[in-house]
Amino acid sequence: MFSDEHYMREALKQARYALQEEEIPIGAVVVMDKQIIARAYNQTEKLRDVTAHAEMLALTAAANYVGNKYLADCTLYVTVEPCVMCAGASFWAQVKRVVYGAPEEKRGFRRHGNLLHPRTELVAGILAEEAAALMREFFAQRRK
Amino acid sequence: MFSDEHYMREALKQARYALQEEEIPIGAVVVMDKQIIARAYNQTEKLRDVTAHAEMLALTAAANYVGNKYLADCTLYVTVEPCVMCAGASFWAQVKRVVYGAPEEKRGFRRHGNLLHPRTELVAGILAEEAAALMREFFAQRRK
Repeated sequence: MFSDEHYMREALKQARYALQEEEIPIGAVVVMDKQIIARAYNQTEKLRDVTAHAEMLALTAAANYVGNKYLADCTLYVTVEPCVMCAGASFWAQVKRVVYGAPEEKRGFRRHGNLLHPRTELVAGILAEEAAALMREFFAQRRK
Repeated sequence: MFSDEHYMREALKQARYALQEEEIPIGAVVVMDKQIIARAYNQTEKLRDVTAHAEMLALTAAANYVGNKYLADCTLYVTVEPCVMCAGASFWAQVKRVVYGAPEEKRGFRRHGNLLHPRTELVAGILAEEAAALMREFFAQRRK
């Protein structure tokens, strides 16, 4: 029930909402004390805003919920490896864990070294195939 | 009139607003066709949101103004070297130029390599002393 896979399935639901709205299908949830306190999906097209990545929206929503900009007791689940911007945001929020699904070799943060906060634990590859399949579906649709 | 120093003075005005509100005093403006299209200052405390850096707010406001998430004809002026998150945001927006004042050796993006978009020109050190003086004033006040 309270496994990483469980929460990642919730993030994947968010990614599917993005796909329905013709956004790059990436979803995120933030979990504190086993409870989901924020859910978001990528909205860069709708909002015409490069900063509206799923992770950014989820971190902002979580901070609103907690009433604190630091999220040291929270885990960020995101379907795809975060970019540099989102890794940087998780650094500032000092999140406890970052858990992602599919790797993003071109735009993911990891090729720039470890940009996360020293206290942040990183877990990769949770339901990676489901997350990657959504990305492939999006780009296949767009090529048509 | 249309010099980098001119626009940086406007960013410094924003930084002073932040100082008045007991925020880390960093300000930013976005310029397109010689015109300032967005002004912002750091509001992470007021908004309790780590993503509310001056650059992020200015880039979002500029995209709203232009009606386009890409800011390829825009220059981002910011009083202090951007962090990893803000460098990442400027990458996605593909801004034409990033111009900053004072270096930020600990939290600035540059120690992680060049995180900017390959098309983005980087200019450093414009009115650096003024920007650094505001930062020193903030941290001196806070120690009291």
